[in-house]
Amino acid sequence: MTDDHLFVELIRRRLSVERFDPSHRLDEATVRALVADAAEAPSSFNIQHWRFIAVRREADKARLMEAAYGQRQVADAAVTFIVLGDAAGVERLPEVLERAVAEGALAAERADAWLEMAQELYADPALARDEAIRSACLASMVLMLAAEARGLASGALIGFDPEKVRREFAVPAGCVPVMLLAVGRALEMDGARKPRLEVDSILSFDDGRGLER
Amino acid sequence: MTDDHLFVELIRRRLSVERFDPSHRLDEATVRALVADAAEAPSSFNIQHWRFIAVRREADKARLMEAAYGQRQVADAAVTFIVLGDAAGVERLPEVLERAVAEGALAAERADAWLEMAQELYADPALARDEAIRSACLASMVLMLAAEARGLASGALIGFDPEKVRREFAVPAGCVPVMLLAVGRALEMDGARKPRLEVDSILSFDDGRGLER
Repeated sequence: MTDDHLFVELIRRRLSVERFDPSHRLDEATVRALVADAAEAPSSFNIQHWRFIAVRREADKARLMEAAYGQRQVADAAVTFIVLGDAAGVERLPEVLERAVAEGALAAERADAWLEMAQELYADPALARDEAIRSACLASMVLMLAAEARGLASGALIGFDPEKVRREFAVPAGCVPVMLLAVGRALEMDGARKPRLEVDSILSFDDGRGLER
Repeated sequence: MTDDHLFVELIRRRLSVERFDPSHRLDEATVRALVADAAEAPSSFNIQHWRFIAVRREADKARLMEAAYGQRQVADAAVTFIVLGDAAGVERLPEVLERAVAEGALAAERADAWLEMAQELYADPALARDEAIRSACLASMVLMLAAEARGLASGALIGFDPEKVRREFAVPAGCVPVMLLAVGRALEMDGARKPRLEVDSILSFDDGRGLER
């Protein structure tokens, strides 16, 4: 993609869909491809804190919908991902770094320094949790755009009971449920693109032109 | 973009760059366009919690680099964005909803219901903070890809002193510094793409095939 117009067209076309075609199915290969795309997001020290549970079976989607206060898109969409952030993600960093060094993507001395820095940084549980949320969100955004690029619709939800999701779907202890991501075929485009705030009200410059608040 | 190959090519081409051309400048129009693109991300109730401070002047970039423990990319990049999440973002929801209703993107009754739900939800400060981080990260990911689509390079950083950034750059009280995002021209592609974990180790299905941890 050398032309940014294509990308701008993609991000403007994407809408958060609430009504999905309940008869639509997605094969496992597509589900895996979407997750592989999502994993192209960047992450701190390349830790890749993102984890995904793909919920596709009718009975499971119904259980997940219940944990999402009955929001129908969870059950209607072909797949609803439970997007998790692994607050203990740093534990897998040695494995990640070993491969990066083996593939020549990182110098061995740098890998050692990264491991030391990361272990020190993420010993703070609050920071580790924040990072898990950050990484999971970066990956989720790529997943939504990857769905759009494949002609699929998506809708992110944060209205769900995290403890119920944790219990019902055996979320590993160190993982934080970050969002639900419904992906499927839009039944109808039932909403226009929501207007955005003016750039001036979300952007300030270092020359003193300030944010509104 | 009807062809997902173009998008996959874009996300695979993007690398987190650490060495930027310090002589490269970006005009204000490009900075604004990148932020406008970022704001195409979705957000809870369309609150748009993201805020950006674009740091471009040499002296300011030097101050910001100091708050980022001397990481050079902060000063070398043409612009480094301080990406903020507004934990009090819900306060602007009435304005957001009014415009959505006026533009026919949302029914008036739904807008009323949204406002009530959102105000109840984000009365919880922990949830409000999480949401600010989530939204800021979704927007940051779009910004990084928008930079790539424009032939620019980017590098996200979370290694900085948030209190120092807050103080030095007059971050509004309700806003959480979420990341720094350096954008400019790569001096050299000094790193290969870092290998990713296998899909099977980050994805599980609802039929019982579990996450590794």
